[in-house]
Amino acid sequence: MNNSKSASTAKRTIVIVGGVAGGASAAARARRCNEAADIIMFEKDRYVSFANCGLPYHIGGEIDERDKLLVATPELFEKRFRIDARTRHEVLSIDQEAKSVQVKNLESGEEFAQDYDRLILSPGASPIIPPIEGSKAKNVFSLRNIEDMDRINQGLSSESSTRDVKQAVVVGAGFIGLEMVEQLHRLGIKVSLVELAPQVLPPLDREMARLIEEELERHEIQLHLGDGIQGLKVEGDRAVGVTLDSGMTIDTDLVIMCIGVKPNTQLAKQAGLEIGETGGIKINEYLQTSDPNIYAVGDAVEYEHAILEKSMRVALAGPANRAGRIAGEHAATDQSPSMAAVMGTAIVRVFDLGAALTGLSEKMAAKFNRRAKSVIVQAGHHSGYFPGAKTITLKLIYEPETGVVLGAQAIGAAGIDKRIDVIATAMKFKATVEDLTELDLSYAPPYGSAKDPVHLAAFTAQNDLRGFAPIVAYDADLAGKQIVDVRTLKEQEKLPPVPGAYQIEVDELREHLDELDPEQPTVVICHSAKRAHVGTRILLGHGFKEVSNLTGGMSIRRLMEN
Amino acid sequence: MNNSKSASTAKRTIVIVGGVAGGASAAARARRCNEAADIIMFEKDRYVSFANCGLPYHIGGEIDERDKLLVATPELFEKRFRIDARTRHEVLSIDQEAKSVQVKNLESGEEFAQDYDRLILSPGASPIIPPIEGSKAKNVFSLRNIEDMDRINQGLSSESSTRDVKQAVVVGAGFIGLEMVEQLHRLGIKVSLVELAPQVLPPLDREMARLIEEELERHEIQLHLGDGIQGLKVEGDRAVGVTLDSGMTIDTDLVIMCIGVKPNTQLAKQAGLEIGETGGIKINEYLQTSDPNIYAVGDAVEYEHAILEKSMRVALAGPANRAGRIAGEHAATDQSPSMAAVMGTAIVRVFDLGAALTGLSEKMAAKFNRRAKSVIVQAGHHSGYFPGAKTITLKLIYEPETGVVLGAQAIGAAGIDKRIDVIATAMKFKATVEDLTELDLSYAPPYGSAKDPVHLAAFTAQNDLRGFAPIVAYDADLAGKQIVDVRTLKEQEKLPPVPGAYQIEVDELREHLDELDPEQPTVVICHSAKRAHVGTRILLGHGFKEVSNLTGGMSIRRLMEN
Ligand SMILES: Cc1cc2nc3c(=O)[nH]c(=O)nc-3n(C[C@H](O)[C@H](O)[C@H](O)COP(=O)(O)OP(=O)(O)OC[C@H]3O[C@@H](n4cnc5c(N)ncnc54)[C@H](O)[C@@H]3O)c2cc1C
Ligand SMILES: Cc1cc2nc3c(=O)[nH]c(=O)nc-3n(C[C@H](O)[C@H](O)[C@H](O)COP(=O)(O)OP(=O)(O)OC[C@H]3O[C@@H](n4cnc5c(N)ncnc54)[C@H](O)[C@@H]3O)c2cc1C
Ligand SMILES: CC(C)(COP(=O)(O)OP(=O)(O)OC[C@H]1O[C@@H](n2cnc3c(N)ncnc32)[C@H](O)[C@@H]1OP(=O)(O)O)[C@@H](O)C(=O)NCCC(=O)NCCS
Ligand SMILES: CC(C)(COP(=O)(O)OP(=O)(O)OC[C@H]1O[C@@H](n2cnc3c(N)ncnc32)[C@H](O)[C@@H]1OP(=O)(O)O)[C@@H](O)C(=O)NCCC(=O)NCCS
Repeated sequence: MNNSKSASTAKRTIVIVGGVAGGASAAARARRCNEAADIIMFEKDRYVSFANCGLPYHIGGEIDERDKLLVATPELFEKRFRIDARTRHEVLSIDQEAKSVQVKNLESGEEFAQDYDRLILSPGASPIIPPIEGSKAKNVFSLRNIEDMDRINQGLSSESSTRDVKQAVVVGAGFIGLEMVEQLHRLGIKVSLVELAPQVLPPLDREMARLIEEELERHEIQLHLGDGIQGLKVEGDRAVGVTLDSGMTIDTDLVIMCIGVKPNTQLAKQAGLEIGETGGIKINEYLQTSDPNIYAVGDAVEYEHAILEKSMRVALAGPANRAGRIAGEHAATDQSPSMAAVMGTAIVRVFDLGAALTGLSEKMAAKFNRRAKSVIVQAGHHSGYFPGAKTITLKLIYEPETGVVLGAQAIGAAGIDKRIDVIATAMKFKATVEDLTELDLSYAPPYGSAKDPVHLAAFTAQNDLRGFAPIVAYDADLAGKQIVDVRTLKEQEKLPPVPGAYQIEVDELREHLDELDPEQPTVVICHSAKRAHVGTRILLGHGFKEVSNLTGGMSIRRLMEN
Repeated sequence: MNNSKSASTAKRTIVIVGGVAGGASAAARARRCNEAADIIMFEKDRYVSFANCGLPYHIGGEIDERDKLLVATPELFEKRFRIDARTRHEVLSIDQEAKSVQVKNLESGEEFAQDYDRLILSPGASPIIPPIEGSKAKNVFSLRNIEDMDRINQGLSSESSTRDVKQAVVVGAGFIGLEMVEQLHRLGIKVSLVELAPQVLPPLDREMARLIEEELERHEIQLHLGDGIQGLKVEGDRAVGVTLDSGMTIDTDLVIMCIGVKPNTQLAKQAGLEIGETGGIKINEYLQTSDPNIYAVGDAVEYEHAILEKSMRVALAGPANRAGRIAGEHAATDQSPSMAAVMGTAIVRVFDLGAALTGLSEKMAAKFNRRAKSVIVQAGHHSGYFPGAKTITLKLIYEPETGVVLGAQAIGAAGIDKRIDVIATAMKFKATVEDLTELDLSYAPPYGSAKDPVHLAAFTAQNDLRGFAPIVAYDADLAGKQIVDVRTLKEQEKLPPVPGAYQIEVDELREHLDELDPEQPTVVICHSAKRAHVGTRILLGHGFKEVSNLTGGMSIRRLMEN
């Protein structure tokens, strides 16, 4: 690494479109890299550099002060960074030949041209509003910025409304939708959640999402999954009902639309910049678009996905911040480290649980024709003997031929971020399951276990890959198999075994071998699959021909849809 | 990976010495790998498979039930694993020629020989008791096993004592010493802590340990650092005072000795097995000793250290468990994956803070003549705008020539385990600082930040390595430097700047450049070093010749010893 060109004193004008996650990061870094540049950041809204990700939490009151969301102000940009941050200024078009942008001052209505040497686009994405009747009603909202948040807060306050908001419908069960569900519930509002996919959190695999659905149900959220929104019933200027594809209508005082975002690519398209297959602006490793003087970052672009080795949109703040930092440096100095491929690592809290994921889900692997297998383990977020251990359900997805880790998902009340971050970190280095078995992780009773859940998942996958203790999927078709349920009878009373299963506690299995047929393909089942692992090894050790362990055990099998 | 030999039905006798972390793990795995083997586990104490790491927490009552510490019983080993777990059986010697061990039944006094095909040693380590007067007094304890814990609990109960325990001295400020300090304090006892080293937690670097010392002081623990224990003042059969090298005597009702452990290598030495340079049993990657039929794992052995590439003792439960698993498999089947090098990743909670580390400290790097630099950053364990963010102080240590990460340390009330585990995971793959800047970590307000503390530390190190924003150590000699303190005047009132510093707020620096000498080597300082980074870049951008940032800022500088 060399200093020579990492900073520059080259006089140049850097213009930035968008003043939040990607744009503001680029601006600040550009200044630190080049004290001589002119840096102008145009933002069409009233605020720059705010915490998008905090918006739902201020609506619910968990973040008490609105000001906390304003991470940096135009004044700070001016004083600390000599960055000219112009709010209420919309960039209308780009003239690549002239190297200038056409800008409109939304306050005065005035339009002007601004020259640039380097242009950085970070215009973000816009909420998708379905083209249905009533979507413009006064109490139908989406949430992207401070102004949206203020509008929702206004809609919720009884002073400004014609009536109290007692019930609300959230449309879309992605990350933001679920955050809104929780925050509205926190305000004492009865919340219904509508999602077209047959599950919440579509990036998760079905059974993992099911655990989150149970948490929502526990908080009396009305789930309408696998059902689309057909229209809104409007009275006056207000929506009073949401009509679903299934025909049912949900009464409501407020609607929040969280059905996803579309990248803001209008400027790029108008300028003829290349657009990728998934609809984002195409960029290279230095965040340069097809015009090397124009950079693009954030929700409007396509990043390289580390596992798929394909470009795709990843509308998350981490990549936007990191990409902004690199683009800012490159625009200021014509050199920088390259942008690393992303993994799609994401997390969301849903009431007392959280859901986190990285890399590919099994669903996504199937979609992209990648061979994948998976294991599911359950273990405490720290030692079970230490008070307060919360169960983590951890799914590890790997390539059967090579053992390369493809992805992971975790659900739990604590410690899921750590496990997913550890696995995402290992995945950066193309880790195999074997590598994960070897991780040297910190352990003391308040923090972890001598064998971490990551180790247990990796051991289980390793055992499968080596044929030592083959795994079958939680939803495997068990017809024609010899099924051995090794739970205690008490457990089997609480949660009945699958039909036709032999009921033999693991500790008595060796005494009952003669009741089983060693020639028949056999599946061993317990609650979490840990004792079934012991059972699997006992049967294989006694010459059974083909034995496997139902991953996740009954605790996951019970989540199967009927 | 191939199944063919990963399990075996070879008839053989596997004998295991020690029935806790390493031994019990080896036994259980050996059975899963070989259903036909005879497996005998000798444990000289009354209990097998207990949670050593939980012992302090039961003494303080944080783990309420003693039974929770008994992870598995001899009955479970018999029923589930057909393992003959024999407590109160001490292995006295090994006859390699005859492949047998001499065993003493400590209940009956009877001695007998037990043949083995494979022998696994996991005898652990023993607390060091200093050879001083009074160390055998009735109220002087050490803590290694359940029986020690029971004795301490007995010593603490007023019924059994001649008087209430009002004050106690813990000797040794390592992990277990600090856990004991906290738990005794929890019982309302006035605690003094004596440590020969000039700091608590000797594996940490001085300034990081200082943050833990402050936490101890905040809880009114009397610290006696850099002071050895010379003797005990004994009255009758009880120690009533601890005399230190400095001459002072601390009155006490109870003494706990936590000055470290020595590996239990007697059996190995007697058998002529090779011992390594640091006094542990020498092993290969399959945990085989110099006699390939004898394996050794746990606190008694030397593991390969991933960063030092030398063998050393790492007396921790994670490696013991993982090594036991591998040794058990290899002993049962003659093959297994190899044991990975360890990193020394460790963690401890100390009242409301925790301390975690992995890899090399700067001290240790110096000791082993490894060139090392470091940065210290401070940031919230999740977004600052979300309620409840706790500050993490994170130190990242790296090789200046290559940027390879050598180690990390973290202090904080939450989230330190995640950051150290992420870095330890990256280090397994010989990650550079650059790699850490690229990690795709999970982010939502309740869990993290778009730029994680790991990213910030990596950015800072990257900036240093590239000469973009050079770092000087927190305790650098500032004599002859031009010092610019860019904190606000209010901050400077609270915590005065270093003598002779210019006091110019970062936001006004550009207006005051002419007061400074651009030719003079300059150090910029703020509270955490984040604004000083901006200041450093401003000065370098205006042609200052040599500018650097005092890492950690005043918040760490203030911890310097006078
Ligand atoms: C409610 C909510 C919660 C979220 N939670 C999380 C989370 O927990 N974790 C996570 O990783 N991500 C989260 N995100 C996503 C994250 O905020 C985005 O990925 C990130 O902000 C993208 O950065 P960006 O710079 O591309 O877009 P933005 O941050 O949206 O900034 C784009 C800006 O450009 C402006 N702009 C657009 N066009 C023009 C123009 N022509 N002229 C001038 N200005 C223009 C827009 O007004 C906008 O302010 C959340 C987003 C929302 C809305
Ligand atoms: C109080 C305490 C707290 C700890 N906290 C942590 C922590 O938070 N994190 C962490 O990673 N580590 C911690 N450790 C360390 C961890 O417990 C050890 O690293 C681990 O137990 C080592 O495993 P081992 O099998 O080598 O030894 P042990 O678990 O000690 O087992 C060895 C056993 O062998 C028996 N034995 C010895 N010689 C013979 C013989 N000749 N015949 C028969 N039996 C014999 C002993 O009686 C002993 O029971 C802690 C240890 C203690 C004591
Ligand atoms: C805040 C914002 C303007 C970026 O400002 P920034 O100065 O680049 O970023 P940060 O405040 O995180 O500071 C990071 C910089 O300080 C440096 N730094 C941080 N701590 C440091 C320390 N202790 N010592 C030295 N340098 C340090 C980092 O190295 C980095 O500088 P670099 O990029 O030159 O390497 C921009 O990220 C933003 O607008 N964020 C809010 C919007 C948003 O991100 N929304 C989505 C998430 S809610
Ligand atoms: C408990 C003890 C006896 C080891 O028993 P063990 O059966 O090897 O270990 P665990 O109970 O952790 O279970 C791990 C096994 O179950 C498997 N497993 C766990 N969850 C599973 C799941 N959901 N599906 C399939 N397999 C699973 C693992 O793969 C592993 O089996 P493997 O080694 O054959 O791959 C031993 O570790 C011990 O005595 N511990 C207490 C002492 C101690 O460690 N002290 C220091 C720390 S306080």
